[in-house]
Amino acid sequence: MQINLVTSNKNKVKELKAYLEPGIKVNHIGKEYKELRSDDSEEIAKESAQRLANELKKPVVAEDSGLFIKGLNGFPGTCSKYVHQRIGLKGILKLMEDIDDREAFYRSAIAYCEPKKEPISFLGEEKGAISEEIKGSYGFGHDPIFIPENSKKTYGETEKCENLKRFRRKAAEKLRYYLLEERQ
Amino acid sequence: MQINLVTSNKNKVKELKAYLEPGIKVNHIGKEYKELRSDDSEEIAKESAQRLANELKKPVVAEDSGLFIKGLNGFPGTCSKYVHQRIGLKGILKLMEDIDDREAFYRSAIAYCEPKKEPISFLGEEKGAISEEIKGSYGFGHDPIFIPENSKKTYGETEKCENLKRFRRKAAEKLRYYLLEERQ
Repeated sequence: MQINLVTSNKNKVKELKAYLEPGIKVNHIGKEYKELRSDDSEEIAKESAQRLANELKKPVVAEDSGLFIKGLNGFPGTCSKYVHQRIGLKGILKLMEDIDDREAFYRSAIAYCEPKKEPISFLGEEKGAISEEIKGSYGFGHDPIFIPENSKKTYGETEKCENLKRFRRKAAEKLRYYLLEERQ
Repeated sequence: MQINLVTSNKNKVKELKAYLEPGIKVNHIGKEYKELRSDDSEEIAKESAQRLANELKKPVVAEDSGLFIKGLNGFPGTCSKYVHQRIGLKGILKLMEDIDDREAFYRSAIAYCEPKKEPISFLGEEKGAISEEIKGSYGFGHDPIFIPENSKKTYGETEKCENLKRFRRKAAEKLRYYLLEERQ
C-alpha cells in the first residue's frame, strides 16, 4: 500500500512517514499548490486533494494544519503558515501579552482523494497552551511556543517531537484505518 | 454597459458604484464564495472571477483587497479580512507597538472574466501610514487605522471616504477604461 503525499513541507513528510510507514509507504510529491482561503481545515484539505488527484491523475493525500488560539478568536488558524511567515513567533507572543487565557489547539486535516472521485477527510486535534517565551528549535511552525497538554515543555524543546505530536498522528491514524480496513 | 459584481461586502458595492456609475451600471450579486490562499491579490481576484463566470454563466467582476504593512513584512496582506475578523484593529496596533516604520499601503485587485475566457485584472495601490490609535468609524476594514498619504486623518475619520479612497478607485478606473475603450 502506498500513498502519494503532495506537500512542499518536508517536516510534514517526516511526520507522516513516522506515523504511517512501514504499513503504508509515503511517496512524497514535492509540489507547491494553491489552497483555498477558508475557516475550515477539512474543506481546504479536501479541495486540494480533489484538485491534485484530477491534475496528477493518481490518488492523492493532502494535509492542512493550523494553530487555533482561544484568546485570539482562533487566530492564526487556517492562515497559520501565512501569518507565521510575516509576524513570526514573536508576533504571536506580542498579541498574547494582554491575554490571560493561553489555551490553544493544533488541528490537522488530512484528505484523501482518487481521480474523479469525492474526497474524504480525517481530523486530528490536540490541546495545549501558548508558552510565555519562544523555547527550542525542534519541529517547525509554531512548535517552539506550543506546550501540549500534560507537558511543561514546548514541542520546540522536545527532541523527536514528531513522535509525540498527537494532532497530525490522530488524523494519520484515521487515514490508515480507512485505507487498510474500511476501504477493503 | 453593466457589470456583475460578485461580493458579500456591501461597502465594496457602495465604493465601486461611486467610481463606475452612471457610465457602467453595477449589478450586485450578493454571493459568498471561496477564494484562493495566495500572496498575490491579482491571482486571487482572477481565479475567483474565472470560477464565478463559469459557474454563473455570465461576465463577472471580483475584487480582492488588503492592507500591507511594511514593518510587518506585508501582514495582514491578502489575509486582511481573515485577520481582521480575529484580532481586529487592536491586534494590528498591538503588533505595531515596537515598530517605528508605520508605512503601509492598501492594494485592490479587480478582475473581470467572461465565461470560458481568460480573466484580466487591474491593480490599484495607495500609500499611507498606520495610526497610533483607532480613529473614526467611516469606511470598513482597516480604515480607522489607515492614514492616507498627505493627510492627517484616518479614512475612518473621513466622512464619505469612499469618494477619496484611491486604491480601489484606481483599479476601478482601469476596469472602466478597459470596458469602455480598449475592449471595443
